[in-house]
Amino acid sequence: MPVTIGALRESAPQEIRVSLSPEIADKLAKEGARVLLERGAGERASFPDALYKNVTWADSAAQVLAESDILLTVQPLSVAQVQQLKSGAVVVGFMQAHSRLAEVRALQARGVTAFAMELVPRISRAQSMDALSSQAAIAGYKAVLIAASHVQKFFPMLTTAAGTIRPAQVLVIGAGVAGLQAIATARRLGAVVEAYDVRSATREQVKSLGAKFVDTGVSAEGSGGYARELTAEEKAKQQEVLDARIAAADAVVTTASVPGRPAPKIISRGAVERMRAGSVVVDIAAEQGGNCELTRAGELVQHNGVKIVGAVNLASDLAYNASEMYARNLFNFLKPALAKGELAIDWNDEVFAQSCLTSGGQIKHEPTKKALEA
Amino acid sequence: MPVTIGALRESAPQEIRVSLSPEIADKLAKEGARVLLERGAGERASFPDALYKNVTWADSAAQVLAESDILLTVQPLSVAQVQQLKSGAVVVGFMQAHSRLAEVRALQARGVTAFAMELVPRISRAQSMDALSSQAAIAGYKAVLIAASHVQKFFPMLTTAAGTIRPAQVLVIGAGVAGLQAIATARRLGAVVEAYDVRSATREQVKSLGAKFVDTGVSAEGSGGYARELTAEEKAKQQEVLDARIAAADAVVTTASVPGRPAPKIISRGAVERMRAGSVVVDIAAEQGGNCELTRAGELVQHNGVKIVGAVNLASDLAYNASEMYARNLFNFLKPALAKGELAIDWNDEVFAQSCLTSGGQIKHEPTKKALEA
Repeated sequence: MPVTIGALRESAPQEIRVSLSPEIADKLAKEGARVLLERGAGERASFPDALYKNVTWADSAAQVLAESDILLTVQPLSVAQVQQLKSGAVVVGFMQAHSRLAEVRALQARGVTAFAMELVPRISRAQSMDALSSQAAIAGYKAVLIAASHVQKFFPMLTTAAGTIRPAQVLVIGAGVAGLQAIATARRLGAVVEAYDVRSATREQVKSLGAKFVDTGVSAEGSGGYARELTAEEKAKQQEVLDARIAAADAVVTTASVPGRPAPKIISRGAVERMRAGSVVVDIAAEQGGNCELTRAGELVQHNGVKIVGAVNLASDLAYNASEMYARNLFNFLKPALAKGELAIDWNDEVFAQSCLTSGGQIKHEPTKKALEA
Repeated sequence: MPVTIGALRESAPQEIRVSLSPEIADKLAKEGARVLLERGAGERASFPDALYKNVTWADSAAQVLAESDILLTVQPLSVAQVQQLKSGAVVVGFMQAHSRLAEVRALQARGVTAFAMELVPRISRAQSMDALSSQAAIAGYKAVLIAASHVQKFFPMLTTAAGTIRPAQVLVIGAGVAGLQAIATARRLGAVVEAYDVRSATREQVKSLGAKFVDTGVSAEGSGGYARELTAEEKAKQQEVLDARIAAADAVVTTASVPGRPAPKIISRGAVERMRAGSVVVDIAAEQGGNCELTRAGELVQHNGVKIVGAVNLASDLAYNASEMYARNLFNFLKPALAKGELAIDWNDEVFAQSCLTSGGQIKHEPTKKALEA
């Protein structure tokens, strides 16, 4: 009997992405799976039901939860949803294991095999499954659109009969996937862009996108593609140089985060107070506490004429493309385990092994286990 | 005695531009004028009072109105404000003479010499005074940012490990100053852009910006840089071709207007209903009734999953640059009439003659005179 692969109309607040695009639903059906979708699942992401072919429609989330052998999600299931799952079901999606401990306990108690997309190892073979990256790229693009929408200046230089308008100055902090896409987007729009990352290895990437790398004389290469935390002294030195660049910027986009930890505070209140009236800070790390001291997640804070945007779940704003890419990430993740419509997970495959959060009543991810024991 | 040139903190709703930037205030002072500014005049346009040099501060609008020999405005003065003007004062600004007849009557009754910036002739010598153009360029840029913010897709093509995201399809209707800037901005952002204008002479300009010109086989060259109105038959033919392009677009920006008349209706309800869910129409002509049948000025209308943005006063959203350019336009307009800080208007100069709305108790602009007599 073929596996049933299900997808819900996401119920988390402000989440309008869907885990299955019509393209991937069709591909899964062609792999032999029964694809079970809650009605209206993709509607808010501009995938009306009519676009899905070869799928079975469920009239309720409960039906999808009860019948799915493999459930594909965007946001973590609630405890109540987990309790409606088939015993032994497989769930694949973002799990926010660091902060959603009650949900992890529920997955464990239900005997669910849960794979967390944010735990997929960042190895070359798994790039096509890297949902953190695909969604971060979208967030970086969107952050620049938000910055451009709030700032009272043109991003490009404009030469007119009444003289020249100078291009806007944009500073991007953090040159990971989101930061690099922010740089590329601000450059596309014609702004003069500077960028900074504690990992000085990003310098060449920043330069190749046409931005200037801010040199603070401090480096903090870390493991797994993330930055390590800096010492107090390094931070002070970094801050001094950065504060001057922040003060010179019309728009600052901050993207610095360390997984499972509060976001580093890079922009102090004092630095904001040195910015010109009409400038803007877009803080992508708002959900992790923010890179700016004044950030409040989901809010627009005004301080001395400077706007600080506490950006939340930006990928969902571009739900169409974000869902398209996320669904492809899920497909690339699942495909090696799908043989003739049946599920066969190779636990020797580090992708499955490392991304597994719970299985057979056990917590498989060590940091989560420690957090639960603490 | 030097003339007093005044500027107000604009009081019209949602108008945050200011008629005098620090740059131009200083220039006028150097020409020998006394520059009188209402406190906080430029604050909302990111020009705090501290940035203005060589100006006199007024604590109230009333003082500016009572003391100005030349008052520079963005939006038309209200009837009550006109009645507080010095008799014989000169006012220069946007006058909306077609629709603000009560205000025109008040200017006439008060014996004010009023110059309407929208009436400055579009001759080569007056390009540096062309405030309609400078503000339209800003509106075109902003319209594309709004479109990109509402559409659930990336504008640029994105190539990732999980496959390619196709670039968005943007259609710009009307290739005047606003339309051309919209095309340029959408192209900068990486979208695939098509554009249409009833004046086929715009074809080369459209192409030079990297957009495809939509050929409907209908042309409507008009006078003064604007389009003439089309016949019913021409409209039907145009519509057929355009509707197909509208249906194919992820974002449509419409900028078609005929001065002093309702905006031509180019996008019917039926055309919107052929668009994909998640698409967006940004209608810059909303204040003139809109180019889309479903447009409501100042509102976001949702119809079958398509968003229609009734964009209003977009230039004010980029108040910093908009004010900077507008103030330069005003300066270039005034300068020939300022000699050693005194005002001397050469009525043989067609710029002054044609832009004059009222003077010495007379209505000088014929269409306005006719409208008032009707």
